[in-house]
Amino acid sequence: MPKSVAAFGEVMMRLETPGFRLLSQTDTLQVSYSGSGVNVLSALSRFGHLALPVTTLPDNPVGDAAEANLRKLGLLPHYIRRDGMYLGMYILEAGFGARPGRVTYTNRQQSSFNLAAEGAYPFDEAARAADVVHFCGIALAMNDTVRRNALRFAEAVRAAGGTVAFDCNYRPGLWGPDGYAQARPWYEKMLQLAQIVFMNENDAIHVLGLPLPGGDRLEQLQALMPVVAGRYGTAVLAGTHRGIESDGRHSLLGYLYRAGEFHFSDRLTFPVYDRIGAGDAYASGILHGELSDFPADRTVRFAAAASMLAHTIAGDTPFSSEAQIFRAMNEGAGDIER
Amino acid sequence: MPKSVAAFGEVMMRLETPGFRLLSQTDTLQVSYSGSGVNVLSALSRFGHLALPVTTLPDNPVGDAAEANLRKLGLLPHYIRRDGMYLGMYILEAGFGARPGRVTYTNRQQSSFNLAAEGAYPFDEAARAADVVHFCGIALAMNDTVRRNALRFAEAVRAAGGTVAFDCNYRPGLWGPDGYAQARPWYEKMLQLAQIVFMNENDAIHVLGLPLPGGDRLEQLQALMPVVAGRYGTAVLAGTHRGIESDGRHSLLGYLYRAGEFHFSDRLTFPVYDRIGAGDAYASGILHGELSDFPADRTVRFAAAASMLAHTIAGDTPFSSEAQIFRAMNEGAGDIER
Amino acid sequence: MPKSVAAFGEVMMRLETPGFRLLSQTDTLQVSYSGSGVNVLSALSRFGHLALPVTTLPDNPVGDAAEANLRKLGLLPHYIRRDGMYLGMYILEAGFGARPGRVTYTNRQQSSFNLAAEGAYPFDEAARAADVVHFCGIALAMNDTVRRNALRFAEAVRAAGGTVAFDCNYRPGLWGPDGYAQARPWYEKMLQLAQIVFMNENDAIHVLGLPLPGGDRLEQLQALMPVVAGRYGTAVLAGTHRGIESDGRHSLLGYLYRAGEFHFSDRLTFPVYDRIGAGDAYASGILHGELSDFPADRTVRFAAAASMLAHTIAGDTPFSSEAQIFRAMNEGAGDIER
Amino acid sequence: MPKSVAAFGEVMMRLETPGFRLLSQTDTLQVSYSGSGVNVLSALSRFGHLALPVTTLPDNPVGDAAEANLRKLGLLPHYIRRDGMYLGMYILEAGFGARPGRVTYTNRQQSSFNLAAEGAYPFDEAARAADVVHFCGIALAMNDTVRRNALRFAEAVRAAGGTVAFDCNYRPGLWGPDGYAQARPWYEKMLQLAQIVFMNENDAIHVLGLPLPGGDRLEQLQALMPVVAGRYGTAVLAGTHRGIESDGRHSLLGYLYRAGEFHFSDRLTFPVYDRIGAGDAYASGILHGELSDFPADRTVRFAAAASMLAHTIAGDTPFSSEAQIFRAMNEGAGDIER
Amino acid sequence: MPKSVAAFGEVMMRLETPGFRLLSQTDTLQVSYSGSGVNVLSALSRFGHLALPVTTLPDNPVGDAAEANLRKLGLLPHYIRRDGMYLGMYILEAGFGARPGRVTYTNRQQSSFNLAAEGAYPFDEAARAADVVHFCGIALAMNDTVRRNALRFAEAVRAAGGTVAFDCNYRPGLWGPDGYAQARPWYEKMLQLAQIVFMNENDAIHVLGLPLPGGDRLEQLQALMPVVAGRYGTAVLAGTHRGIESDGRHSLLGYLYRAGEFHFSDRLTFPVYDRIGAGDAYASGILHGELSDFPADRTVRFAAAASMLAHTIAGDTPFSSEAQIFRAMNEGAGDIER
Amino acid sequence: MPKSVAAFGEVMMRLETPGFRLLSQTDTLQVSYSGSGVNVLSALSRFGHLALPVTTLPDNPVGDAAEANLRKLGLLPHYIRRDGMYLGMYILEAGFGARPGRVTYTNRQQSSFNLAAEGAYPFDEAARAADVVHFCGIALAMNDTVRRNALRFAEAVRAAGGTVAFDCNYRPGLWGPDGYAQARPWYEKMLQLAQIVFMNENDAIHVLGLPLPGGDRLEQLQALMPVVAGRYGTAVLAGTHRGIESDGRHSLLGYLYRAGEFHFSDRLTFPVYDRIGAGDAYASGILHGELSDFPADRTVRFAAAASMLAHTIAGDTPFSSEAQIFRAMNEGAGDIER
Repeated sequence: MPKSVAAFGEVMMRLETPGFRLLSQTDTLQVSYSGSGVNVLSALSRFGHLALPVTTLPDNPVGDAAEANLRKLGLLPHYIRRDGMYLGMYILEAGFGARPGRVTYTNRQQSSFNLAAEGAYPFDEAARAADVVHFCGIALAMNDTVRRNALRFAEAVRAAGGTVAFDCNYRPGLWGPDGYAQARPWYEKMLQLAQIVFMNENDAIHVLGLPLPGGDRLEQLQALMPVVAGRYGTAVLAGTHRGIESDGRHSLLGYLYRAGEFHFSDRLTFPVYDRIGAGDAYASGILHGELSDFPADRTVRFAAAASMLAHTIAGDTPFSSEAQIFRAMNEGAGDIER
Repeated sequence: MPKSVAAFGEVMMRLETPGFRLLSQTDTLQVSYSGSGVNVLSALSRFGHLALPVTTLPDNPVGDAAEANLRKLGLLPHYIRRDGMYLGMYILEAGFGARPGRVTYTNRQQSSFNLAAEGAYPFDEAARAADVVHFCGIALAMNDTVRRNALRFAEAVRAAGGTVAFDCNYRPGLWGPDGYAQARPWYEKMLQLAQIVFMNENDAIHVLGLPLPGGDRLEQLQALMPVVAGRYGTAVLAGTHRGIESDGRHSLLGYLYRAGEFHFSDRLTFPVYDRIGAGDAYASGILHGELSDFPADRTVRFAAAASMLAHTIAGDTPFSSEAQIFRAMNEGAGDIER
Repeated sequence: MPKSVAAFGEVMMRLETPGFRLLSQTDTLQVSYSGSGVNVLSALSRFGHLALPVTTLPDNPVGDAAEANLRKLGLLPHYIRRDGMYLGMYILEAGFGARPGRVTYTNRQQSSFNLAAEGAYPFDEAARAADVVHFCGIALAMNDTVRRNALRFAEAVRAAGGTVAFDCNYRPGLWGPDGYAQARPWYEKMLQLAQIVFMNENDAIHVLGLPLPGGDRLEQLQALMPVVAGRYGTAVLAGTHRGIESDGRHSLLGYLYRAGEFHFSDRLTFPVYDRIGAGDAYASGILHGELSDFPADRTVRFAAAASMLAHTIAGDTPFSSEAQIFRAMNEGAGDIER
Repeated sequence: MPKSVAAFGEVMMRLETPGFRLLSQTDTLQVSYSGSGVNVLSALSRFGHLALPVTTLPDNPVGDAAEANLRKLGLLPHYIRRDGMYLGMYILEAGFGARPGRVTYTNRQQSSFNLAAEGAYPFDEAARAADVVHFCGIALAMNDTVRRNALRFAEAVRAAGGTVAFDCNYRPGLWGPDGYAQARPWYEKMLQLAQIVFMNENDAIHVLGLPLPGGDRLEQLQALMPVVAGRYGTAVLAGTHRGIESDGRHSLLGYLYRAGEFHFSDRLTFPVYDRIGAGDAYASGILHGELSDFPADRTVRFAAAASMLAHTIAGDTPFSSEAQIFRAMNEGAGDIER
Repeated sequence: MPKSVAAFGEVMMRLETPGFRLLSQTDTLQVSYSGSGVNVLSALSRFGHLALPVTTLPDNPVGDAAEANLRKLGLLPHYIRRDGMYLGMYILEAGFGARPGRVTYTNRQQSSFNLAAEGAYPFDEAARAADVVHFCGIALAMNDTVRRNALRFAEAVRAAGGTVAFDCNYRPGLWGPDGYAQARPWYEKMLQLAQIVFMNENDAIHVLGLPLPGGDRLEQLQALMPVVAGRYGTAVLAGTHRGIESDGRHSLLGYLYRAGEFHFSDRLTFPVYDRIGAGDAYASGILHGELSDFPADRTVRFAAAASMLAHTIAGDTPFSSEAQIFRAMNEGAGDIER
Repeated sequence: MPKSVAAFGEVMMRLETPGFRLLSQTDTLQVSYSGSGVNVLSALSRFGHLALPVTTLPDNPVGDAAEANLRKLGLLPHYIRRDGMYLGMYILEAGFGARPGRVTYTNRQQSSFNLAAEGAYPFDEAARAADVVHFCGIALAMNDTVRRNALRFAEAVRAAGGTVAFDCNYRPGLWGPDGYAQARPWYEKMLQLAQIVFMNENDAIHVLGLPLPGGDRLEQLQALMPVVAGRYGTAVLAGTHRGIESDGRHSLLGYLYRAGEFHFSDRLTFPVYDRIGAGDAYASGILHGELSDFPADRTVRFAAAASMLAHTIAGDTPFSSEAQIFRAMNEGAGDIER
């Protein structure tokens, strides 16, 4: 049965150079509209759920274009506010081989979303309308008003009996030099409210300041996630370990920790067309598994396959149906379908 | 010495999304015009033969554009009829990695080709004009009129002393649930007329209903092709085994069965740019070898290299010259030529 | 106060050649999705009304793309059925100066919309959901099932107390040689149900067979519309007279006949960027005026300005807001806004 | 009844900047292949005649692309030689309003056509194959070998009983400062062979050195053409007077002088999309009228309409059918056809 | 003899929708880099002068691309500072006919230029390097620091014996509701420093608060400019009156007031390809005339022709050479040059 | 401390087919401007040095566009002469997998650079302005005048106390059948002047005619370079060994021979986006190391990383900063930077 999922976060305009060109080498840019919440919701809408972004877009032609494109992605505009003048933007120069991709942001701090006042959103109404609400650590990096809005909304969700999902998504570039210390109290508040949390051992060590356990990454993960779950009362923890092969392919190992047990996907290895948004696809897969009462094992494999497929799609936003993901879980790369 | 080759079949408009995008993600489509016969003839025209499509195009601007593009590919318009209103079309969303490509057809049944009446074509004249005529199993999947036209033409070719080449090319999606049973009688009639047949063990088992022999695919092929050749009096049987590597490259093993002997190419492994039409390139290579009296061994290696190169070219249609294929047979991937 | 407007009709894929090129001159096509109902609804959605297409789209990637694009245009998918395999398509080669534009259709008859069975739609529910439902004469040209569905839906709208709007939109090319006689009975049935009708003197003379009055076009219009209103009990009649100036600009005179009185817009003269869909923009303006209780004079001037602006926008679909249309009513062409 | 028309001349690659941009403002160029003979032949092929370019293209991928594109335009490759290494190229920056367009040539002197030796072409065979052969003054501007080849071919045409058509097309930029004097003897030789000549009073005065008569342009034309026809025994003289209106539209008045009488088209006034090749379209119209035994009046009106339509088509090459030109002769600018 | 010209002002990234599309209708944008000073300097660089922007660009890939594009336009980077993180951006949706174009800005206030501290620039050194320095009223609209920097630089120019040119360029949208009163003191300070000022009667009335004289626009201009020159000691005043014709063409009348006398260009009427930056082209023409000691009459006609040509070029930035402008002064619209 | 580097050589227009298409398959081409010297200088300009091309561009719009693009790449126009009419051009069809790329040249011999007279350049002034001057063997392949100009410039550099760098870059296609013998005397003269030489064992054996030593390529290199250094008094010899892996990746081993010792980079293996210009990137890395007094080991590793990164950038011209190259030396392929 379809559920209602809301997401609180900023929508951005992505301006991408074509054909692996640098910005200096092009006079055209490819435009799309995305954001962590947009990506998660778009995926969930393709799985059949109602998708409700809770955000603010500017009240001008840029906001019109953004809203039209969100509707095209399957999102419903009920909780999209239109106010202010600016949309966050970023320029993406895709990398190739040994040359890493580059993201250059315009000034997000004055965006309609980041200037929306406390109390501007009908959080209680939105909380009642949604079974799950997704929050992202990127929003916490913006400013105190956004942070307080996020916490206020999460509290409303809990009060209304809904589920709070939180993707840690710590971005060092957004928090600055003393970032971990600044971020910690806000993350801790969010974790106290969240029942489903996306993170891995790095977040536990750096953002939450847990002591570094011994062993390799996987052992660290297995040591730390139970501690996090215990401390914050988290029902579900999930995340991935990414690797980059010498031939340029990426690999992904998904984990899900629930009820004291770890569940892992296979380590998937695959070529990458567009890496951005693949973490959101993973989150959407976990949320869909939880909303659909998949067994934990199936959920983690579904999420990993959803993330793998998101790497094969242009743009930030996942476009795969549940059926396509099931097939990717069960089959290798296929020949053309006709 | 150049020969005349005709091909009976439908021409289609291919509408491809750019840059691995889904149809939902693009507002431009790349147009080309192709078809099994077009592909085979275009390749043979580049090898120096006269190329005569026997087909019907609509009598409108779409037909004008299709005919102009066939001429550009090196095909001669003498037996292109202009009648009716529609051209078959398909939309191609190229796959990437774990995401398979998708082909969505428009309604081909009302195309000018599929509605051309029995008796509409000057088959006897075309048969006299051609040394070899190529037929494709896709045409057999259309409707009874097309099937009867195909058989009528093949009979005319034999009566005129020409060679009938038939590519089984069984497409499950075009025949429907009970397809093999429906297809079998038509395939059997065609096989009785054809001297050169493109197929492999799957066609023999499923379409012709031969009993499944033991062993792996290669052993099955080696068991079944002599049976087919014996039953239908086929002079030449040829085809390929395709594999997909874990790193996304495809591999191809070509075979040629003639005068009771099998000849195999090396198994070629290569990256893929556009996979559609690669089977037609293989067929064109076999036909060129036969028309040019290559030794069987050289023919099968030529055909496999022609098919490999067709994977490196945008669009359905092969563009390689005989010299380029010889070089690809004899050398590995090369540095830029300047 | 926003109203709910539904529209019954086919959605088509428009494939346009870029830069005034002929189809033979291009290998890219520009894709959009439109239709008479889509155009009217998209305009009304920009004026603040709920926009409910009642149609059938294929259940495949082409249908997915069409539905996503309708959502992007502001349409709500509640009464979009997903069934069948084909979407009507047309290729547009824009004209320039003395060279007229050309539209080449693919086969619409097998489209999902045109094959939707009687009884396939929840017409009673849709009728209850809508204040006004828009029908278009193009749908009447398709086949008996579509015609019966249209009438059945119009009856349901009347039964539910809603308003039936009907745009005559007689297309000679779709009805064939004996078209007027074939069309007349269906048009008459529709006119008996419709309260708002878009037509002009040509429709009255040719489709309805009214006797040709004397005088010029305008006098004929003024003679015939009262006859039509009287015969069919039509509350509102509206339409336009288009002219083409020697310098290529078009001119438009809008009329509205209501309660025994004619109201005319100024004759507007303007350059044309994309002419398709401008009649739908006029209809949307009349409907908005009626839904918003504009005085008749303001309604006809609003509709004419809406239509003029639709000529300045790429694609079939109007994109102007109410404010932009008011400004175009009151000001001439302006300098850039910044 | 279709005729065979040959044309002797250079094929060039046209590289055009998109969207009225300067070369400094773009990093893409639009490619097409044209030439005076190509344009005339392409038009005549659309009128149903066989079109035989007599030219030399380089024996490399550029020559392959040029030949494929000529085939696409409807030209037959029988007398296309493949030799040498270079194709003439030019860069076109389209003008807008007060800013004139600019053509920048690459070095044509080393092109395959301009380096083709005397005796390289099978002129006698080509002369026997063609009812009419078209020559252009641009070829005379190249070098002595090309000039001698042109005269040698024209003599062969006369010997074989065919018709020589010659378009004066004097280009000051190609002949240099002392051009008229250098050009005159070659033009005179060509005029002695030609039965159909395209020119106007400027050519008579400057190239042939006839004394300047009194009166305006039209009176000068009417004074001089009978002198030219008398001196060189020309059966048909034809040409145009072009004007540019203050609003940017061009106007065209076509004339035809035959059997001592002048025939004029209406002065047509029209917007311009691409002006290059419009003179060739006029020539093609005259040739078609002559080949089809149109009355002189109809021929000159057909040619003027053909030229007007050529201004509405992207690229150098006309694309209009006989029916489209007849309609443009008889109707004004029309609405979209659907 | 070439001179050195500097300009103080912001560089912006212009993102333009292609083909008259709205932002909602496109997924590509055309990028260029411009600004009032960039436009003036680029034009002057084409006239042979050294062009020195005095500005700040972000120290990131966007700044790299902007600087590279300024160099491409002929500007020298000596006084381009690289600091901060953001470049001002605007999205341009070009208008068509009755639909006005729209400019939507991103947040300029945090741009590298608008955050550059007082004292950040080496104004004294730049003042010594330049014969003339151009300032624009847009910079005055930004913030107090920019305003103070502008005045500080203008003072340095006067101290170094250079010429201060000031383009009033009052933009209501940038100053807000009480704009004239806020702007006036800054404009007055700038006018006291400037020797060459670009303005017309509107600026005098609204920005400077001079009493409205009687008469039409031209009479108002002739009444007010002597007052301005007298009050502020301005050596040269120049500007334009723009009109928009019913057929969409624009018209331009340039004036120059010097030594107590008015000089006017002809009123030029012309079609418009891209209107932005045409005022800067006018200013560049006046400056070039002054730097080159043209007679006043020639200067004003040169400036008007430069502005007319700038309307025919894509983008904000003029690209015409002195020779091209002279030709446009002396001839009408011409045929293609080849 | 930044140095001044000049380069003597031809600038060419590169016309590339998009998307791995053949020239026959496309009607758009991607334009850029490059050349061996341009590539080396552009890289060095990004490392902070002054970059001075010494070349001749045509005095027309093509030359304008070339010069503007060189400025965009960071080159200074002081020693760019503008003369003549033609720019060398080449068409690039990028290869894919087993299909090699193809370069088709237009006629370079008549280019402005190749026709520039002896004495046309201010070589003495340029020599005094530059710390290092780069020459390329491609220029030696053109004609005697270019060769003599190159030697004359190299002598001037030595006379002025500067460093001559020479990249052997022997292109068989440019020298013809008896090329090695023709080239040898010119190469020997250049080597006597050059202090830094780019070559490997193939140049020594074929161009210089040194006897073939035993061993594999690396052993041959180690045997021959000391001989070359001894014979010509070369201070620095450098170059690469390239390999192509079965999976299509390229590998590169860089060497530097200085003061009797060999220094090698790691063998780097990487995917290739655009291979052209990668040798120039290597040269730029060596020159930067020498100009910056890097230890030899660091220089060769820096050059190899610079070359590897140049393979990941569209176009001939390197775009990496010193910091990006250092990072690529020290890290593997990275995830996206944001």
